[in-house]
Amino acid sequence: MEFINGGVCAPKGFFASGVHCGIRKNQSKKDLALIVSRQKASAAAVYTTNLVKGAPLLVTRKHIADGYAKAIICNSGNANTCNSNGVEIAEQVCKLLGNQLEIPAEDVIVASTGVIGQPLDITPIKNAMPALCEGLGNNSTDAACAIMTTDTVIKELAVKFEIDGKECHLGGIAKGSGMIHPNMATMLIFLTTDAAITPKMLQKALSEDVTDSFNMISIDGDTSTNDMVAILANGMAGNKEITAEGKDFETFKTALSFITIKFCKMLAADGEGATKLIECSVRGAADNENAKKIAKAVISSSLVKSAMFGADANWGRVLCAMGYSGAKVNINKVQVSFISPKGSVTVCKDGMGVGFSEERAKEILLEKEIIIDISLNEGEGRATAWGCDLTYDYVKINGDYRT
Amino acid sequence: MEFINGGVCAPKGFFASGVHCGIRKNQSKKDLALIVSRQKASAAAVYTTNLVKGAPLLVTRKHIADGYAKAIICNSGNANTCNSNGVEIAEQVCKLLGNQLEIPAEDVIVASTGVIGQPLDITPIKNAMPALCEGLGNNSTDAACAIMTTDTVIKELAVKFEIDGKECHLGGIAKGSGMIHPNMATMLIFLTTDAAITPKMLQKALSEDVTDSFNMISIDGDTSTNDMVAILANGMAGNKEITAEGKDFETFKTALSFITIKFCKMLAADGEGATKLIECSVRGAADNENAKKIAKAVISSSLVKSAMFGADANWGRVLCAMGYSGAKVNINKVQVSFISPKGSVTVCKDGMGVGFSEERAKEILLEKEIIIDISLNEGEGRATAWGCDLTYDYVKINGDYRT
Repeated sequence: MEFINGGVCAPKGFFASGVHCGIRKNQSKKDLALIVSRQKASAAAVYTTNLVKGAPLLVTRKHIADGYAKAIICNSGNANTCNSNGVEIAEQVCKLLGNQLEIPAEDVIVASTGVIGQPLDITPIKNAMPALCEGLGNNSTDAACAIMTTDTVIKELAVKFEIDGKECHLGGIAKGSGMIHPNMATMLIFLTTDAAITPKMLQKALSEDVTDSFNMISIDGDTSTNDMVAILANGMAGNKEITAEGKDFETFKTALSFITIKFCKMLAADGEGATKLIECSVRGAADNENAKKIAKAVISSSLVKSAMFGADANWGRVLCAMGYSGAKVNINKVQVSFISPKGSVTVCKDGMGVGFSEERAKEILLEKEIIIDISLNEGEGRATAWGCDLTYDYVKINGDYRT
Repeated sequence: MEFINGGVCAPKGFFASGVHCGIRKNQSKKDLALIVSRQKASAAAVYTTNLVKGAPLLVTRKHIADGYAKAIICNSGNANTCNSNGVEIAEQVCKLLGNQLEIPAEDVIVASTGVIGQPLDITPIKNAMPALCEGLGNNSTDAACAIMTTDTVIKELAVKFEIDGKECHLGGIAKGSGMIHPNMATMLIFLTTDAAITPKMLQKALSEDVTDSFNMISIDGDTSTNDMVAILANGMAGNKEITAEGKDFETFKTALSFITIKFCKMLAADGEGATKLIECSVRGAADNENAKKIAKAVISSSLVKSAMFGADANWGRVLCAMGYSGAKVNINKVQVSFISPKGSVTVCKDGMGVGFSEERAKEILLEKEIIIDISLNEGEGRATAWGCDLTYDYVKINGDYRT
């Protein structure tokens, strides 16, 4: 398993493009992304659990009900959510793309991200469609740029692996970075692979993966209306199609997890206003479910997040979050340490404070990647969650997002 | 029903005091508060639901198990939580006070607020005990000051009412202002009344009240370890003791609600770093439970809170929070308006945006008290929740709380 370049275009037979069509005023910011597979591909997706769902999600769900798709189109700058003609517009986008590429509109996955509740004008998308399709090539980075909203870092990844003696590839692009919270498919993630796998097994792999990856991130506690993770598998690597569980399926899941966990860290580190990546690692819980509840509560706590921003070893807030997490936990057995590239400091044992050097703790917490390591000494349950610190800039970014 | 002066000393036979004993370094900040009833009083309390509970809560629960108490003592600057000798220290505080006042230690309610996980030294409390008791008088404000942590406003209230032809009084002091979130008895609230009521009915009145008052506030989503609401009723107003439901009980509950709802608004408006009070009023929900879920989700949303700080009428975030609230809601029937002393603007009807003047909305949202008014058109369910905006100062205060 090895990281490689190329993003969504690393797998064979995938092409991408990204243009500025004019949904956003800033002409230097691309706002329309396209990913196309040369061959019809198995398709799977997971969606936000928010009751308010963006119109594109409803259309996508319908389009991949048969298990297949050929293209993914996504605009930023407007979520196309809570608009009276949202579904109509999303369908039109698919139709325009279908006409241009000479494929059925039903083979298009459509997504939107941006402000909720503002009508989405089809005109700029329509006008840009020829250029968008002409631009198709090895342009994963253009597509990755075009789906960014308040992200500050371009997020694309790819990995190389082997199934059935054939070299396979899996690539992806991702965007954050606010309105992100566990218990759903978070943010927008588009994945491509040339491995051959049935739609059913592709959906199974994706659904199982997100429970330990994207559902374990929180930037700000707000579950978005528009988030989805979609994957296309076109089979051009030539491996024997994965049709059931087994060694090949496990290899595929490992490759998927390789990419998704790395994306989790990238998304959390680039959370709105973030200066640090916070990882909460829980071990020794009664079971994995309890471990997850604890890990999520800790990285979601505004007080823990603020303390991390201030490099303050205020471990009482970690215990406080554990206490309200809803998990079964014997507080008297809890051990907490802070870990960073500068080293490790244990701040709490048996649920009580232990003497530690505040200076040493500060030195450790001033780093850019912090692990809050929690050991429960109750069982074998484990979980990891990712988040970021809460900063002045989060407030600044969100205090006036629409202007 | 009429607001009066005097705080916890407004009811007959209650005396208060507050001193600087030295738990806090800043000598100008009082850190030890005392409230005493001349006569033994019915006592009731509700506590945080956090699994991690401050030692004082455990001791208080034991002390009022018989339904009676005479005094409330509370320090700020140290939560006495997650300390190996916490219960012992809390018991010692009660004993020292009992000795000084010549009352049983078991008649003392004890509370602490401040940093979690730092040993609480009994010495400054012991040394200050004579002065604390000598200072007892009509000094509600001193006690209110002594329980403040990051609060910026002194919170004391009292109300006058009549039961059984007798003039009764109910007073209180309160402190916020971080680590406050619904689903528990939030923050510290100490209430006194000279109305005669049995411990059982007093507990019933309090438990019922908090579901619509203190459990409907959120400052930052963090449920504290140390919070409690305690009330003493010494019967010195001379009314026939309230022993069951009925007219007198309802009058008492109305008086209680008068005080607690007002405290809710004061606590939310003085939330850490807050510049505005945000009230979310939900009407027309399927039932009250669904209305509560929605109101709480909206005032807890970091994105809504940031938008309010920026006076940005970003109503899509309100709908987003409704969508993940867990409430049953037909989004297509939702109407949202923003209301302030400057007027009202409707921003969403039937779940879709409606045209409105951004300038007018800005003018309304620049005020200090904002109501987010949500109408669901589904049934008779209602709820109100209180919160505040999310600001740079929240991050500043909590980035380095311990120093």
